[in-house]
Amino acid sequence: MHYNYSMSYLEHYNGLPVLITGGLGFIGSNLAHRLAALGARVTLVDNLLPDTGWHPANIAGLEGRIRVIIGDVGDEDVAREAVAGQAIIFNLAGSISHIDSMRQPLMDLDANARSHLVLLEAVRQHRPDAVVVYAGTRQQYGAPQYLPVDEAHRNLPNDINGINKLAGEWYHRIYHRVYGLKTCSLRLTNTYGPRQLIRHPRQGFIGWFVRQAILGETITVYGDGQQRRDLVAIDDAIEAFLRAGVMEAAWGNIFNLGGEPATLLSIARLCVEIAGQGDVALVPWPAERAKIDIGDVYCSYARAQKTLGWQPRVALRTGLENMIAFYRRHADLYLQQPDPAALLTW
Amino acid sequence: MHYNYSMSYLEHYNGLPVLITGGLGFIGSNLAHRLAALGARVTLVDNLLPDTGWHPANIAGLEGRIRVIIGDVGDEDVAREAVAGQAIIFNLAGSISHIDSMRQPLMDLDANARSHLVLLEAVRQHRPDAVVVYAGTRQQYGAPQYLPVDEAHRNLPNDINGINKLAGEWYHRIYHRVYGLKTCSLRLTNTYGPRQLIRHPRQGFIGWFVRQAILGETITVYGDGQQRRDLVAIDDAIEAFLRAGVMEAAWGNIFNLGGEPATLLSIARLCVEIAGQGDVALVPWPAERAKIDIGDVYCSYARAQKTLGWQPRVALRTGLENMIAFYRRHADLYLQQPDPAALLTW
Repeated sequence: MHYNYSMSYLEHYNGLPVLITGGLGFIGSNLAHRLAALGARVTLVDNLLPDTGWHPANIAGLEGRIRVIIGDVGDEDVAREAVAGQAIIFNLAGSISHIDSMRQPLMDLDANARSHLVLLEAVRQHRPDAVVVYAGTRQQYGAPQYLPVDEAHRNLPNDINGINKLAGEWYHRIYHRVYGLKTCSLRLTNTYGPRQLIRHPRQGFIGWFVRQAILGETITVYGDGQQRRDLVAIDDAIEAFLRAGVMEAAWGNIFNLGGEPATLLSIARLCVEIAGQGDVALVPWPAERAKIDIGDVYCSYARAQKTLGWQPRVALRTGLENMIAFYRRHADLYLQQPDPAALLTW
Repeated sequence: MHYNYSMSYLEHYNGLPVLITGGLGFIGSNLAHRLAALGARVTLVDNLLPDTGWHPANIAGLEGRIRVIIGDVGDEDVAREAVAGQAIIFNLAGSISHIDSMRQPLMDLDANARSHLVLLEAVRQHRPDAVVVYAGTRQQYGAPQYLPVDEAHRNLPNDINGINKLAGEWYHRIYHRVYGLKTCSLRLTNTYGPRQLIRHPRQGFIGWFVRQAILGETITVYGDGQQRRDLVAIDDAIEAFLRAGVMEAAWGNIFNLGGEPATLLSIARLCVEIAGQGDVALVPWPAERAKIDIGDVYCSYARAQKTLGWQPRVALRTGLENMIAFYRRHADLYLQQPDPAALLTW
């Protein structure tokens, strides 16, 4: 079952049983497409939590090639069923909205902390040899004390979502340390690309920027727009998950992903330029956002580079061109509320 | 409602409506006795969580002088009822067992994270002017990087209980920062004294040491017994809560409590000496305990001293004499499972 370093890490996935929690979401579904193409035996589980990134369209084209479980891994029975027989579990379930976590803190707790504890218990009891790769977030660090933020940076999350995501990650660490589970965490920064939620502005700025651009509307940027973020293209993020899934050096470890920092204003302008429509306006900070904003933030990915051989390869312009091209074709679908009934045929 | 510094901080409590969550437990009940004596209008809420420190005997003598709500502050209705009209909320509800948190991680999550989020939402919505003093723990720091551990030390809990306690504390921080709630946290170290649980060994070593001594049995100490801990007598801990409850400088802050470090072996021997019976044996580390042990740990209380005017006053020998005298009188009661029926008369 262990990765044979004489093979490409990609070949390892051929025929491998893998589970993706949150598998109908942005990253999960892109991972499912990639894994199916690599010949893996893919199971998705998703609880269709309102306002998160799940969408039936995300798995269009995979009909008959993957297994889909509609259920909550926070339910012990669902978790047990989902983990049965899996070699690798990509644990991407959760809610990523800062704003929603302040409005519905208990929802956020259940989605980001409780569900992972239930999943880890299921793995410990029923599938202790499975590798578990968790999707963490650089939000766990809170306001940076230095840049770029590396994995030694103190954790001091600035909102309820960050606290619960951190708890979720740390459960993985404890289950590695105490029970020897093969867990690791990738701390994601702003990931972007096709199949990302663009219906509302509460799942990160980049989906919203692209949406406004393809609709020919105004992208509003808070303050002077000089806050810097590092964006990671979905293909790069997927590569990191695929590497972490098969490399023993990942177990018990955490890895930042990261990319080239860019200002929000420059990213907004690039969206408008690529889309050939829309425009950009600077507006004052809304009070609710200002309170939980964390200024400039970008991450060092040196550890992922050294240990996993990972580095970002997709240039920001190329990544945004791919994303905008995707939404030119599929905007109608992705601007609507997703319909659970579309999953009945699965 | 604000503390008038020309008064003793104790006078401030006369007539004040205060809530104690986890009020039937060790620290909560001692606080209730003290507050009742100071003339406060005391409400306790407690969910009688199995294996935690609640005991009907803990509030013996307070009949007719305090109000008792049997219910879970993790239940929104209970939380709303409990916070209504309160000026100060001492938020002590939770489970403190490292071992139980590994055996029942979801119980621990509900008790230490979820319940606090529900309580804070109730305060935010219904009683936003109330002061909330949370009982944190030095366990949140995990294995010390330096000694004594101060509040700037990184947080890296070593077990599920530490993660959930940290999440619980950080919710308080966020609700201060975002909503302006008057929250603070006291990070407790090993607190000891009368009304502490001595029925089982999973709530810290000190209750168990005292139990073994008063029963004339052997106190087993792991390894060479040279691990150092700092103990805080219950009267000192209560003083810290009373100070934090009325001092505006506490809001939004965290404070370590702490005391003079002593080795586990010397503490065990002192218990035997004071009790005049029992003995001490060194035994090898059990594997399950070794994995979550954190070596020497003791805390700096310089911030509490500077900001709250607090310092430990009770010598270890005096504190243990008080505790052992209490259990000489009440061992029969405290060695039995507590009976909820005894609360029906309240």
